[in-house]
Amino acid sequence: MITPRTLKGFRDYLPAQALAREWVLDVARRVYRSYGFAPIDTPALEYLEILTGKGSDETDKQLYRFTDHGNRDVGMRFDLTVPFARFAAQHVGSLGLPFKRYHMATVWRGENTQRGRYREFMQCDFDTIGTTSPVSDLETVLVVHDLLVAIGIDRFTIRLNDRRTLTGILEQAGLAEKQTDVLRALDKLGKASPEAVGTELAGHGVAPEAIERLLAMASLAGPPQAVLEQLKPLVGESEIGKAGLAGLAKIIDGVASAGVPAGRVMLDPSIARGLDYYTGIVLESFLDELPSLGSICSGGRYDNLAGLYTKQPLPGVGASLGLDRLIAGLEELGRLPTAETPAEVFLVFFADEHLGDYLRIASALRSRGVAVEFYPEAKKVGVQLKLAAKRGHPVALILGSDEFAAGKAQLKRMASGESEELTWGGDADVLAEAVAAAVASVRSRT
Amino acid sequence: MITPRTLKGFRDYLPAQALAREWVLDVARRVYRSYGFAPIDTPALEYLEILTGKGSDETDKQLYRFTDHGNRDVGMRFDLTVPFARFAAQHVGSLGLPFKRYHMATVWRGENTQRGRYREFMQCDFDTIGTTSPVSDLETVLVVHDLLVAIGIDRFTIRLNDRRTLTGILEQAGLAEKQTDVLRALDKLGKASPEAVGTELAGHGVAPEAIERLLAMASLAGPPQAVLEQLKPLVGESEIGKAGLAGLAKIIDGVASAGVPAGRVMLDPSIARGLDYYTGIVLESFLDELPSLGSICSGGRYDNLAGLYTKQPLPGVGASLGLDRLIAGLEELGRLPTAETPAEVFLVFFADEHLGDYLRIASALRSRGVAVEFYPEAKKVGVQLKLAAKRGHPVALILGSDEFAAGKAQLKRMASGESEELTWGGDADVLAEAVAAAVASVRSRT
Repeated sequence: MITPRTLKGFRDYLPAQALAREWVLDVARRVYRSYGFAPIDTPALEYLEILTGKGSDETDKQLYRFTDHGNRDVGMRFDLTVPFARFAAQHVGSLGLPFKRYHMATVWRGENTQRGRYREFMQCDFDTIGTTSPVSDLETVLVVHDLLVAIGIDRFTIRLNDRRTLTGILEQAGLAEKQTDVLRALDKLGKASPEAVGTELAGHGVAPEAIERLLAMASLAGPPQAVLEQLKPLVGESEIGKAGLAGLAKIIDGVASAGVPAGRVMLDPSIARGLDYYTGIVLESFLDELPSLGSICSGGRYDNLAGLYTKQPLPGVGASLGLDRLIAGLEELGRLPTAETPAEVFLVFFADEHLGDYLRIASALRSRGVAVEFYPEAKKVGVQLKLAAKRGHPVALILGSDEFAAGKAQLKRMASGESEELTWGGDADVLAEAVAAAVASVRSRT
Repeated sequence: MITPRTLKGFRDYLPAQALAREWVLDVARRVYRSYGFAPIDTPALEYLEILTGKGSDETDKQLYRFTDHGNRDVGMRFDLTVPFARFAAQHVGSLGLPFKRYHMATVWRGENTQRGRYREFMQCDFDTIGTTSPVSDLETVLVVHDLLVAIGIDRFTIRLNDRRTLTGILEQAGLAEKQTDVLRALDKLGKASPEAVGTELAGHGVAPEAIERLLAMASLAGPPQAVLEQLKPLVGESEIGKAGLAGLAKIIDGVASAGVPAGRVMLDPSIARGLDYYTGIVLESFLDELPSLGSICSGGRYDNLAGLYTKQPLPGVGASLGLDRLIAGLEELGRLPTAETPAEVFLVFFADEHLGDYLRIASALRSRGVAVEFYPEAKKVGVQLKLAAKRGHPVALILGSDEFAAGKAQLKRMASGESEELTWGGDADVLAEAVAAAVASVRSRT
């Protein structure tokens, strides 16, 4: 006998977890599509040369790699950005530009599991490539906004910055040559104290007055228009800095036009992100009730997606939903569905001679879009209802020989335990209408 | 520069293909759920000992296997049945029985690509375990039926048999000891001629009279009740054979009760399938317009799913949708959606000063469930409409400065080229209602 077990760092998804996950993925898919993003998929395995050296030293080390049956060196994808770069370079001629894609798929990293990380997880990326338009930056912010609203989160903040603004401010402060060190230090704000970041900046030779100005800049807060006004003198005459501010102003205007309530999109001059990659806007988003969770959807603009595979420059902008982090947050907030079943109705089966009637009733319910679990054996009602309660079906429908004879049925709302007698007179459509209405009323209360 | 390419036997899914695939998966998910099947997921990687020796010699040879960072021998799953057996043995205590799951996921086999096979493909399985009830057999047939109907196929046939009936017939014919050889030979019918199968049977020492009866049995056709009547004398007093006939009769009655039109579920005594695995009903399903495609959804009942991992017997019944085969068939029949975009409306952008108005209109459409592609740069209308035509947006919406001033808009139906003037007077909700109605009318015509 072989012990049934999963590999360390890997996990099974049981129905309750898989249903919650499918729900979030479905919402993300719907929102991405509503903006015209189209799905793509790429293989789990790629030539090793496509994958190595494209992430960090860490991702190289974590790569699952091996030699296949044809003696090729291959690796399992560790993110969706590298495969998208390869994909875009390979297919750009037939895709047309600008091109907007989403990709929701599994990636693998042989990480240290002691940090509570899994070695297999999903990413949900969306990107617009082939345009430098600030309208695409704006759309990226709107997609993140609509996604969090569609998930049912009402208190969240999208924090926005522009790498060009930072560059302009450093230029004006005479720190252009120290940009990488300065941004790396500033990026630690939030995790590290301003004092610690100041010490690190001093270590890079930044003058005390400049440190003070940088820390003041990074702590600017308040209404976006006010932050923009305060950034203007810091950017001064820097062309790149002014371009950054203009881009941010366009987004702030645009989100208001699109109906986003004030306070949901804020400017945060401390955000730098991905030092080597992003070149324009950068964004992070936080649940107001769980700020310590970290950013659940992050991204930004980059100059060139696929420079390693094609000479055609492909500028773009996009973001990625941290699916596992969001699900952990929703669970902590008690906002994750907990049912182990997708079926709203549990149809108790205990009058064997009425199998045909049960089938007609189940069929009438399904044709109305109501999912029905039909217990396959004519067992005691108690046994069946116990399973229905464990699984979390909202409603159970009970019909025995007496009910069939009288043209009645018992509908039990599982959460409250209330029962209600329905009259259907043998017409499955009449019964299905009544049950569908009860299911809709239970749904609207949750 | 690195050449962007995929591994041999692997492929990218571009938007049109990925959209078609997501559509089929979504339909399958909806139908599986409507019967109470719940999703699960398992890791792509398993301990090698879980995977080897569980399929055929061929799947062992095709297995992608390697040693991971922790020096563990691991493999990539080659089907969803073996991981489900491991999963069921591991979690049966917390799942409750009977347990119904679907699993739609990618599997990998290092197959010979010269046969036009891919090394990475998806399987879409559903199973009911922990019950021997014929009602679960019946539900399996109903799920396959509803799935094909929901895909929009009107002409298909589900072919059904029961392994116990075959066993009974062989018992009665004195061929019980030759069962494996006989079933293996009969399984070739359809691909091989009756004469060739007869020759093979003779080679196994089956008497000419018995061969004649077996071939006559395998070619029985007609209304299911008539086939059942003709099978009865062949089964005679065999207990197992009579149990098989009773099960088939129950399914034939049940599908009629559930409203399945006559002719869609037929009995086919020639179907044996998976000699070592199935022990009760077996089923295959075919598109009437493309019988040569082979079965697109197949399955059956088995005695014990997870005997290698647990002593608890787990009988079950299920089937698997051949996703790639179905998609190939739909494409051949011209029934596959061909658009490269999920967005119904392409919103032309050419009056830069009206960006806020465009955003308001797009937002009003999205709140009505209409997906909108908004071109991110204020370019010439012709350039934008050319892209809209390539991508397959059903409708384009055109508003320039003149239209904004007059409170009008041009709606262009891309397939017919017809244009229509809409009056909205600056109220985005009025315009969105009119466009949503136009989108609905275009949809209903396709």
